[in-house]
Amino acid sequence: MNTIIEKIKTLDLRKYGHDFLLTWDKSPDELEATLLLAELMRERHRLGKSNLVFNSGLAVSIFRDKSTRTRFSFASAANALGLAVSDMDEEKSQISHGETVRETANMISFMTRVIGIRDDVYLGEGHTYMQEVSEAVQTGFEEGVLHNRPGLVNLQCDIDHPTQSMSDLAMLKNYFGSLDRLKGKKIAMTWAYSPSYGKPLSVPQGIIGLLTRYGMNVTLAHPEGYTLIPEVLELAKNQAQSTSGSFHVSNDMDDAFSDADIVYPKSWAPFQVMEKRTSLLTQGNRAGLQDLEKTCLENNAKFTGWECTEEKMKLTKDGKALYMHCLPADITGISCEQGEVSASVFDRYRRDTYMEASYKPFIIAAMMFLTSLKDPRAVLNKLAD
Amino acid sequence: MNTIIEKIKTLDLRKYGHDFLLTWDKSPDELEATLLLAELMRERHRLGKSNLVFNSGLAVSIFRDKSTRTRFSFASAANALGLAVSDMDEEKSQISHGETVRETANMISFMTRVIGIRDDVYLGEGHTYMQEVSEAVQTGFEEGVLHNRPGLVNLQCDIDHPTQSMSDLAMLKNYFGSLDRLKGKKIAMTWAYSPSYGKPLSVPQGIIGLLTRYGMNVTLAHPEGYTLIPEVLELAKNQAQSTSGSFHVSNDMDDAFSDADIVYPKSWAPFQVMEKRTSLLTQGNRAGLQDLEKTCLENNAKFTGWECTEEKMKLTKDGKALYMHCLPADITGISCEQGEVSASVFDRYRRDTYMEASYKPFIIAAMMFLTSLKDPRAVLNKLAD
Amino acid sequence: MNTIIEKIKTLDLRKYGHDFLLTWDKSPDELEATLLLAELMRERHRLGKSNLVFNSGLAVSIFRDKSTRTRFSFASAANALGLAVSDMDEEKSQISHGETVRETANMISFMTRVIGIRDDVYLGEGHTYMQEVSEAVQTGFEEGVLHNRPGLVNLQCDIDHPTQSMSDLAMLKNYFGSLDRLKGKKIAMTWAYSPSYGKPLSVPQGIIGLLTRYGMNVTLAHPEGYTLIPEVLELAKNQAQSTSGSFHVSNDMDDAFSDADIVYPKSWAPFQVMEKRTSLLTQGNRAGLQDLEKTCLENNAKFTGWECTEEKMKLTKDGKALYMHCLPADITGISCEQGEVSASVFDRYRRDTYMEASYKPFIIAAMMFLTSLKDPRAVLNKLAD
Repeated sequence: MNTIIEKIKTLDLRKYGHDFLLTWDKSPDELEATLLLAELMRERHRLGKSNLVFNSGLAVSIFRDKSTRTRFSFASAANALGLAVSDMDEEKSQISHGETVRETANMISFMTRVIGIRDDVYLGEGHTYMQEVSEAVQTGFEEGVLHNRPGLVNLQCDIDHPTQSMSDLAMLKNYFGSLDRLKGKKIAMTWAYSPSYGKPLSVPQGIIGLLTRYGMNVTLAHPEGYTLIPEVLELAKNQAQSTSGSFHVSNDMDDAFSDADIVYPKSWAPFQVMEKRTSLLTQGNRAGLQDLEKTCLENNAKFTGWECTEEKMKLTKDGKALYMHCLPADITGISCEQGEVSASVFDRYRRDTYMEASYKPFIIAAMMFLTSLKDPRAVLNKLAD
Repeated sequence: MNTIIEKIKTLDLRKYGHDFLLTWDKSPDELEATLLLAELMRERHRLGKSNLVFNSGLAVSIFRDKSTRTRFSFASAANALGLAVSDMDEEKSQISHGETVRETANMISFMTRVIGIRDDVYLGEGHTYMQEVSEAVQTGFEEGVLHNRPGLVNLQCDIDHPTQSMSDLAMLKNYFGSLDRLKGKKIAMTWAYSPSYGKPLSVPQGIIGLLTRYGMNVTLAHPEGYTLIPEVLELAKNQAQSTSGSFHVSNDMDDAFSDADIVYPKSWAPFQVMEKRTSLLTQGNRAGLQDLEKTCLENNAKFTGWECTEEKMKLTKDGKALYMHCLPADITGISCEQGEVSASVFDRYRRDTYMEASYKPFIIAAMMFLTSLKDPRAVLNKLAD
Repeated sequence: MNTIIEKIKTLDLRKYGHDFLLTWDKSPDELEATLLLAELMRERHRLGKSNLVFNSGLAVSIFRDKSTRTRFSFASAANALGLAVSDMDEEKSQISHGETVRETANMISFMTRVIGIRDDVYLGEGHTYMQEVSEAVQTGFEEGVLHNRPGLVNLQCDIDHPTQSMSDLAMLKNYFGSLDRLKGKKIAMTWAYSPSYGKPLSVPQGIIGLLTRYGMNVTLAHPEGYTLIPEVLELAKNQAQSTSGSFHVSNDMDDAFSDADIVYPKSWAPFQVMEKRTSLLTQGNRAGLQDLEKTCLENNAKFTGWECTEEKMKLTKDGKALYMHCLPADITGISCEQGEVSASVFDRYRRDTYMEASYKPFIIAAMMFLTSLKDPRAVLNKLAD
């Protein structure tokens, strides 16, 4: 494990106050440090060794919607490092901006080391809000109001879901043996049918925005119209080019599955629907929201064939692609009548999906560590044997 | 105190992953170890000594209904051992089963050492749910998804209330001097009138299911029809036989109080009512629930004479039986017009009931310790001087 | 910093179990010890040094209304000292008294070291409730039910707001250099217009009840009728006399601002309105409450001129008085159309108000330390270098 520590020390960890908001704003060194540190703390945890680096301090979570799993991952990570969680739930439909955000961000941060925010409901809001909080605590720190500059961790926004995509990357690194071995592997990030509507775009966007940086052949597949935020598509294309990987968009699930090493079939709402939904939510237009849901569900119903079945799995590399999901999955005949994945496929990969999820608390802990410590290199020695 | 530690080490503590769900599933050695460890930690706490045994980790609480006292006991116990509490409240009326339980149980357990569950509202549900969670985390641990196997502690189910009955046993042991001295002592576990309805059966069931194992003469008394789950009655009868104690059911409160060393007068709803209530709750039948409540309260009103008064106390051994209650009690003229106990009786035993309650956080801490540590014997030394 | 510790040791810290409910029940030595200890822990925190003094234990918070900021200050203070926070929110409109308070206070305190209560909504209730809790845990401790006597900290009641006024005092001491230099300084504690109504009286009461003890010239200004609790006015008058300071009440904001060293313009509801409101709330009289709100807002609207503008600031000593506020302020054109303070004044003093707020977690931590440790002097050495 000490080799991992030495390896991390060779990486460029950026300066204090560089939050983890979007994976594409982080350098390859920062991403690698996050992965390595997560692995180190995971192995230490497995061996019953402490990962405590803080003697006290708060980890504040701000959630705009209910989330059991993310809440537990965040609480686990904070606790592992020695921080106590304080929740600040924004239940108001209209999120605050300006002076209110600046003031609140400072008022909750006098003894706070980490702020984790999940804000994925409104397109155009989540990331913007996180940037405002980031600026507020940066100013508070520079003005001497705050003794420490709390590090921000994006627990899911309207654009990216870095704790998920980084956990997925950790899973893939471990599954295939190294980041290098991901080069040339084909991953099918595909839409899948679900009886619910309005699932956020941040998972597919996070996946194409991260994995195109590792020389993978990324195919994004969805029915016509179920598109993502244009800027992220552009980003994925550019990144794939510069790493000799590839990025394709298809409207054919079979095409995407064909010869894939990894499949990631998951429902989401079309970008245009999310835009309309955001505007209706902002207006508080209930009737409009109900109409939109009805229209969307009717439209979704045309694509029940987008299910990850045994037949579809046979199209993948040797019929043995790794099935991934951020959980919970809509499993046909189990959690719903017809869903994203057939029961037999899910069951075969159930343990894999649980393992995939198991990286998340360690990834979050690594993000906390790297964004909130003034001198992470010095503290690394606490994790040495 | 080191003698207590040595004594615990001689006991058979069972293997890792043996949860504390029902006292009658635990061996005499396990129960004794729980009592001894609770005493040890209580004494250490009194002396201002630390009971920390974990350097980090979560204690997850799952509550199906609101509970201030149990929540604080659980939080106190977790904190004393070094764990941070994370609440996962199930507000949904329909509890989850199957894949959902398995998945959620694993998702919240990556860094979790203890899970405490309170689920006492639906007959036939609480214990079943706990068993599902238990199997889920056991599988997760065996599959390598979880680094630790979280120990489960039943904080009250439809069948048993082990943290209450074990605290009561600790109180009795302390009050009478030893477990041996409980032999032949008469306890009257009796129904008492209360202006509310639908109180759970788990307290009287827990008491008769535990105290019949210690050679006590247990009398269960209630108005006709206010019976308990048949299997627990059968169990109490069998246990009393094999410990040379006795178990009687009576419909006469005076008969039960007569010559009793301990009285435990407490309201509960008849088993048949709880069954009907569960079915109405499951259907979401509000009108039916209101009707049932009305009928029950009318029926209860026939038995206002079932009150622990000074006259009734005079029937007990030398007029000085120990009065017990799990709190809060319905005190006549104080918390209600007419209730379970008269104000003067309650007041005389107020401090005793508070002491009875004071064992609970230490009992829970002992259960956490014994169910969640891989090698409790080795860790015991941390509590040595 | 060790000089501060030695200085604290020379002060009379009173006996164990002396809660922090009202500043005027605390001796000058106790207040000074609180200030010094807060400063010490603040400086240690700034330097990254631990303020841990407990190895475990709970800090229970009881809030009768929602409060993000106070909640975070309390959580920060508890965490800094090594305590875990458990919230017990009383959502019931009718607060408990008598046996219920006594029992609950004991049931939540078996491993509790600190209880923080915020109860400022009902006139005549908050302080009374805190006294009941105080007596309950004192008795529990004396009876041997509780191993420790939890210290109570008033997080705002109907009469006083000591964590705010003491933070303000810490700010003033730091701003002007020492407590001695506050002598003869003029502070204008004035009402200010706000579009909301029903703001508590505890801030102005806390300020005049504390600062008149330090030889300051305190002017309380408000429109006719916006008076405070008579007993606190009387107290302020008497205290000012015995410290050679002064206490004046005015109905003219300009008069108050004139030559002031410090201004504290803040909205509150008239005492008589709070009394009427309390009685309507107790009755659950919604229509009456709406009428009252309407009348009050109409009345408030007559006094929109009570705004802290640049013109008003020019009236102060050299036009440079320190502007104070407990936050959040109603800022004209920012958080409301017309409010307590103009945007340009607030902006110039924004950092000062943030600094003012930054003392609070440390003040609370000092109060916890001094009220809940059996021998605070002995523990002080843990904070020595």
